[in-house]
Amino acid sequence: MSTSPNPIRTIAELKELRALTGDKNGAQRIAFTKTWLKAREFLRAKVAGLPLEIHNDAAGNTWFTLRGESEKCLLIGGHMDSVPNGGWLDGCLNVLAGVEILRRINTQYHGKPPVTVRLVDWADEEGARFGKSLFGSSACSGNLDMNEARGLVDKQGIKLPDALKSVGIDFERVKESGKELKNAAAYIELHIEQGPVLLDIDLPLGAVLGTFGVERHAITFHGQAAHSGSTPMNRRKDAFLAAARMSSEIYRIAERSGNGVCTIGSCNTKPGIVTSVVEECRITLDQRHLDAARLATMFTEAKAASNRFAKEGNVNVSWERIWQIAPRPFNEELIALCDESIRETCGQSHRLPSGPLHDAAEVAAAGVPTVMMFVQSLHGISHNKIEDTKEEHLELCVTAFDKLAGKAMNWVKAH
Amino acid sequence: MSTSPNPIRTIAELKELRALTGDKNGAQRIAFTKTWLKAREFLRAKVAGLPLEIHNDAAGNTWFTLRGESEKCLLIGGHMDSVPNGGWLDGCLNVLAGVEILRRINTQYHGKPPVTVRLVDWADEEGARFGKSLFGSSACSGNLDMNEARGLVDKQGIKLPDALKSVGIDFERVKESGKELKNAAAYIELHIEQGPVLLDIDLPLGAVLGTFGVERHAITFHGQAAHSGSTPMNRRKDAFLAAARMSSEIYRIAERSGNGVCTIGSCNTKPGIVTSVVEECRITLDQRHLDAARLATMFTEAKAASNRFAKEGNVNVSWERIWQIAPRPFNEELIALCDESIRETCGQSHRLPSGPLHDAAEVAAAGVPTVMMFVQSLHGISHNKIEDTKEEHLELCVTAFDKLAGKAMNWVKAH
Repeated sequence: MSTSPNPIRTIAELKELRALTGDKNGAQRIAFTKTWLKAREFLRAKVAGLPLEIHNDAAGNTWFTLRGESEKCLLIGGHMDSVPNGGWLDGCLNVLAGVEILRRINTQYHGKPPVTVRLVDWADEEGARFGKSLFGSSACSGNLDMNEARGLVDKQGIKLPDALKSVGIDFERVKESGKELKNAAAYIELHIEQGPVLLDIDLPLGAVLGTFGVERHAITFHGQAAHSGSTPMNRRKDAFLAAARMSSEIYRIAERSGNGVCTIGSCNTKPGIVTSVVEECRITLDQRHLDAARLATMFTEAKAASNRFAKEGNVNVSWERIWQIAPRPFNEELIALCDESIRETCGQSHRLPSGPLHDAAEVAAAGVPTVMMFVQSLHGISHNKIEDTKEEHLELCVTAFDKLAGKAMNWVKAH
Repeated sequence: MSTSPNPIRTIAELKELRALTGDKNGAQRIAFTKTWLKAREFLRAKVAGLPLEIHNDAAGNTWFTLRGESEKCLLIGGHMDSVPNGGWLDGCLNVLAGVEILRRINTQYHGKPPVTVRLVDWADEEGARFGKSLFGSSACSGNLDMNEARGLVDKQGIKLPDALKSVGIDFERVKESGKELKNAAAYIELHIEQGPVLLDIDLPLGAVLGTFGVERHAITFHGQAAHSGSTPMNRRKDAFLAAARMSSEIYRIAERSGNGVCTIGSCNTKPGIVTSVVEECRITLDQRHLDAARLATMFTEAKAASNRFAKEGNVNVSWERIWQIAPRPFNEELIALCDESIRETCGQSHRLPSGPLHDAAEVAAAGVPTVMMFVQSLHGISHNKIEDTKEEHLELCVTAFDKLAGKAMNWVKAH
């Protein structure tokens, strides 16, 4: 009897899921829709032959439990939901690789592994409908802001609690899902990178150091409108000039920070006409770093720079926080095991932070030792139908992730 | 009998006009409207006692002619039309000061001055309704682009030719107004500055060197959208970064140019979301200079800078001309006479270019020796109900402009 996973089967199942729940524009498994429910039925069908306990928790997360000799659990996570017109791998690769690993462990240990192994399909990782990602995992970790979530409304004006009710979830009880983490001793998650780092260095797999902390702000410079023809240059209070100077500055701030990133994603000008100096200029700034202190420094430096540019340009500046989240560093020992699994599979590993958030960040925040493995993205692009990964890399990632699961089980057992 | 103008009367008439054609939001004498026609009736009533020939030309400009001993003409121009919610002085100060000067000349020369003096009220200087300024004067100068003007449409979908028809003007014949310039030997125009230059140096009046040439372009930088969390800084093709670098650069370009001005008035970003590097950034650039060669240099330098920033930022750039007009330098001798009139009136003069366009630019382009006189703007602001000028400065400007008219008549006679 084989004690190796079958990555070819995983790829075939991913294609089957794509045919079932996608269209010419990409994946359409938006959480709490019929297509999402269809994807979850597909998942249950795939594990039908395994001796698993299966249930949905209070937040709508589905748990597949293979009881072991110890109650201590290794958790393997992913999400079946996608953004609209999404990629064929984001989220479901994680889950279907997890299914393949459950099959291998079940076979190897004849239905009774040394520790309990649980696969979780998180509900609404993407937040595509209500604009709030990590719903199921943040309910489980306890981090979900109930007041904020209670007020979330989709484009049709439907409130999140009502949408949940229609799929049998009682919003006020979602945090009861936290009890699922009771015996959790380690959490592992595989994911497509969704960035260009592994592609650039031409490596198939990487060990993830954690998810970035994020400081997200709107910065508004307030100058004075003035006629473009009659106002001498030295008389101007040009809000765009001050805002534009931030653009180069954030590259210097990111460079000083080590591995942080800073992005000005939008710029709006008022009155915004060709014949007037810009009176008001609003930019958005997104700053990310794996280290909380360095993230704080990046934020402080950006604020100081904006004040300096405002003063030099004779304009005013105001900041408004849009969102923030703390960095979620992963477990050092699990990172080492992840590295080892990758090296054993394909010779060379690479350690990298995750820019995007993942359910793993919530599990880590709940105190469960966590690590993620990334597989290379072609085009460095995700959340798009052109999202893709070479099939040879998909095979390698299932193999390496299975090795990590084995090492993590041993690690859980030994702790 | 007085041979001086009465500036107090001009101020009183301006206030009378304001009460008749303005409201709490400002002046409402938009060309081709009932309020504009009312303003023109007011004007005709004010000159009723003078021995003038009055007619409208083919473009709707009204001409008030005081025949002199010579057919050679001194022209005095202005416009009764305003922008919506406009200021109380822009355009009509010119006309009503002209009326006062006609009165003085008529009195002094007993109805028969040595040269013919004509006051012209240009039609639709502002272009507020059809977005095309200097309608009447550009028809008269011959510069009006008939194909472009024929297609102009207002917000209600009404075409310019149809709007003109409703006030008795045949669009296809508007350029026949050019014959009005037949004996024109000089053109003078008084105007509120609409900028802060005279306010800054604390002088009431200035002699205008000409109107700026304008190069107006949209510049679009094309980069690549990329996730703000997963895309390392050195991998980005950030369209905003390249566009933003233009902001400081245009200040350096303007400085090198001598007295030119450059303005980036608007900035639009796509996709324009907080979590993505900017894929496309479109800015508008307005460049103005009194000297054609220097304007061309400013344009060339801006284009070169955009190409450099695009190359350095690994993005592409494209330019699209929105509008351009050549500089219209005024007549050196008339500028000297204007200076002299100002010095005789208030001791000190200042020479400055005009950023905004004026009907005078069209007359100059038609080859008529031209000069303008500016009176200080409070707040440096125009096209707004808060547009204002101190009454003592209004008195000074009527006096100085009358002196200029006298000197210009002598100049016309001597040529």
